[in-house]
Amino acid sequence: MDRVRPNIGRLKSDIERISTFIDKSKLGHTRRSFTEEYKEARVWLREKMEESGLETSIDAAANIIGRLSGSDNSLKPIIIGSHTDTVENGGMYDGTIGVLGGIEVVRILKENGVNLRHPLEIVDFTSEEPSEFGLSTIGSKGMIGELTKEMLQRRDNCGRVLSDAIHDLGGNSRSIKKLARKKGDAVLYLELHNELGPVLDNKECPLGVVTGIVGIHRYKVIVNGEANHAGTTPMNMRCDALVFTSKLVLKLQSLCKDKNRDDVVGTVGKLNVEPNASNVIPGKCEFEFEVRSLQNDIIDEIVSQFIDEAQALSKERNIKVKFDNISKSSSVIIDEGIKKVLKDSCEEVAKTMYLPSGAGHDANHINEIAPVGMIFVPSKDGKSHCPEEYTSYEEIEIGVHALIKALLAFDKILK
Amino acid sequence: MDRVRPNIGRLKSDIERISTFIDKSKLGHTRRSFTEEYKEARVWLREKMEESGLETSIDAAANIIGRLSGSDNSLKPIIIGSHTDTVENGGMYDGTIGVLGGIEVVRILKENGVNLRHPLEIVDFTSEEPSEFGLSTIGSKGMIGELTKEMLQRRDNCGRVLSDAIHDLGGNSRSIKKLARKKGDAVLYLELHNELGPVLDNKECPLGVVTGIVGIHRYKVIVNGEANHAGTTPMNMRCDALVFTSKLVLKLQSLCKDKNRDDVVGTVGKLNVEPNASNVIPGKCEFEFEVRSLQNDIIDEIVSQFIDEAQALSKERNIKVKFDNISKSSSVIIDEGIKKVLKDSCEEVAKTMYLPSGAGHDANHINEIAPVGMIFVPSKDGKSHCPEEYTSYEEIEIGVHALIKALLAFDKILK
Repeated sequence: MDRVRPNIGRLKSDIERISTFIDKSKLGHTRRSFTEEYKEARVWLREKMEESGLETSIDAAANIIGRLSGSDNSLKPIIIGSHTDTVENGGMYDGTIGVLGGIEVVRILKENGVNLRHPLEIVDFTSEEPSEFGLSTIGSKGMIGELTKEMLQRRDNCGRVLSDAIHDLGGNSRSIKKLARKKGDAVLYLELHNELGPVLDNKECPLGVVTGIVGIHRYKVIVNGEANHAGTTPMNMRCDALVFTSKLVLKLQSLCKDKNRDDVVGTVGKLNVEPNASNVIPGKCEFEFEVRSLQNDIIDEIVSQFIDEAQALSKERNIKVKFDNISKSSSVIIDEGIKKVLKDSCEEVAKTMYLPSGAGHDANHINEIAPVGMIFVPSKDGKSHCPEEYTSYEEIEIGVHALIKALLAFDKILK
Repeated sequence: MDRVRPNIGRLKSDIERISTFIDKSKLGHTRRSFTEEYKEARVWLREKMEESGLETSIDAAANIIGRLSGSDNSLKPIIIGSHTDTVENGGMYDGTIGVLGGIEVVRILKENGVNLRHPLEIVDFTSEEPSEFGLSTIGSKGMIGELTKEMLQRRDNCGRVLSDAIHDLGGNSRSIKKLARKKGDAVLYLELHNELGPVLDNKECPLGVVTGIVGIHRYKVIVNGEANHAGTTPMNMRCDALVFTSKLVLKLQSLCKDKNRDDVVGTVGKLNVEPNASNVIPGKCEFEFEVRSLQNDIIDEIVSQFIDEAQALSKERNIKVKFDNISKSSSVIIDEGIKKVLKDSCEEVAKTMYLPSGAGHDANHINEIAPVGMIFVPSKDGKSHCPEEYTSYEEIEIGVHALIKALLAFDKILK
């Protein structure tokens, strides 16, 4: 009998408990960052960390950090992290199994009298998903000092400023730069996550070790046409912002499809039309698009081709189009040594494969200060960011078990 | 000196006064039906009617009616009407010049001791523009008893039911059917309106007599794809509702353009995307489209071709698409005799031309109970349903002057 096997009943009850802090007017599980539900979940989470023997604090970027001392205080910590915010109408496991799984790891260590050499930090990163401020991975950007003044001054649709929203969660945006962690301030970052894609489920493989995380470039686009009466403006005299935007949506799709690579995807996920009335020709569209790939140069190539073609088309049609970069995260290629230890640890628990991550994670940023490693468990039918997202508790148990194994292995070998 | 020339200073001050009852957080002039601004404007309008010697009432569909007795009480009334609601970010003249111009007509008649044979009714029709209930021309539909139970049960985005909103304006939806006006309950309906299109302005012609009003068929479309993670779902495994919708937007445009007729237009003016987050593949799109033409059979042809092609495309892509008709108004061809009297009356005031109306109006419905006639004044650069909408006070003066002339001519000849 393996001593460091997680108590899945206890973990299940934690996952079910945090899943009650949601916006019940929405489908699935909706716990948007900076909402009341989110704040309540964080209060509960912090208590849960304390109960499990972690010393908790909230850093400048409002990340919740639970710390366990190691036997050698001269060593830098190993960090295990993930997030507890969700997209709208999202799933119940994305992020939460990483944070709550991390707490379960601590409980198992304590119960079995296992002392790590390194300090261990369990981190709930602030707002990993794209927030109402048009930014994602706010907490991990903040932890490494990459939240710029401009980002902190962004407003949501209600006019709230991001820096105020961070203060409201217990952070302090003015200290973010000063308290930023530097390269070498941690020896390793580990994250357990559900895959959010179809590979493990298709291959019936319970564990995946991530080989790389795609880079993501995200842009906001404003298309200014001319609002006019939908009845009295002949078809050939229109500057219809939605017709133009529709062409761009299809153009982005074809540019990404043409690459014919599994790691290259592009999406227009958000679009607002103005004035949005059935008898008015749309005068303005605002949309956000993103392009992802394991190769940063492929992203650059697609984005620049897209912008060029949009600008050329706009001149033909007397329409103005403006592109603003919202965020750029570079792809991360996981270190060979880290991958190897992770795979060996995982294989002690269950069948394991290597795979890339099509989703961005806080690891994209934490990679700047420490080597990162990620373990994936399957997402049924590859569904995620939707109410149907599902990972069984048996699969979560295997994942947390592998996480403990990996942690113990790294704690031994890392300086 | 013409005795029945309008007092343009007085009318200007009325137009400027009603333009203060707007939602100041929006661009241009926004007085959406059933809002507080709309209610306040209607209270002011009713007082203005009473001041001008009209006896006012609110009918079952919440239309405000100001009545002036005629010398022969056995005659049915002549109606002059228009509307005071606007689209979002709309203009200052669309509708208002017809209602306030009608009140100015009454003042001029009174001041000059002109007694009409027919009773005269000045009507402010409830919610002519597409409302938050997905319906337009609510008041004129109601006046002729064409607001169905289904329509009255529609809800806006806040969950308010249309029949309650009508009650809130002083109407009584339960009496609409019973009190509906029948064919012959009025001898004529006249409306002064800005053209909302570019023809009069291009031709530098101050007055237009409408030859026909386009029919409008409006549909709501729900596209159900599959929401999924924008990073982990390969391009060829997506059911992206926005990509599909973009194809439909372009398809509708090409179907309408292909007819190569000035009176045929089609527009997707309203589109909402769900969940509308930059890292989630759109799972659902709801949009509204409309097709207009002077020939009802052309509208039917375009709509059925559009639906057929959408259904065929949806089968290829594993996407569900559902079409619901929101409204159908038939085109109206104006009576030869009415047109002739209108043109003669207008030409006493200024240069006049015949032209069709690409915009629908309350006249589309009132045509069921009485012959209708419409006078247009120019819209600068054809702009309408936007903040830049403009008609000069000189042009409005000419329009109201022509309206009085026409009213006097019809009052003489109609039985």
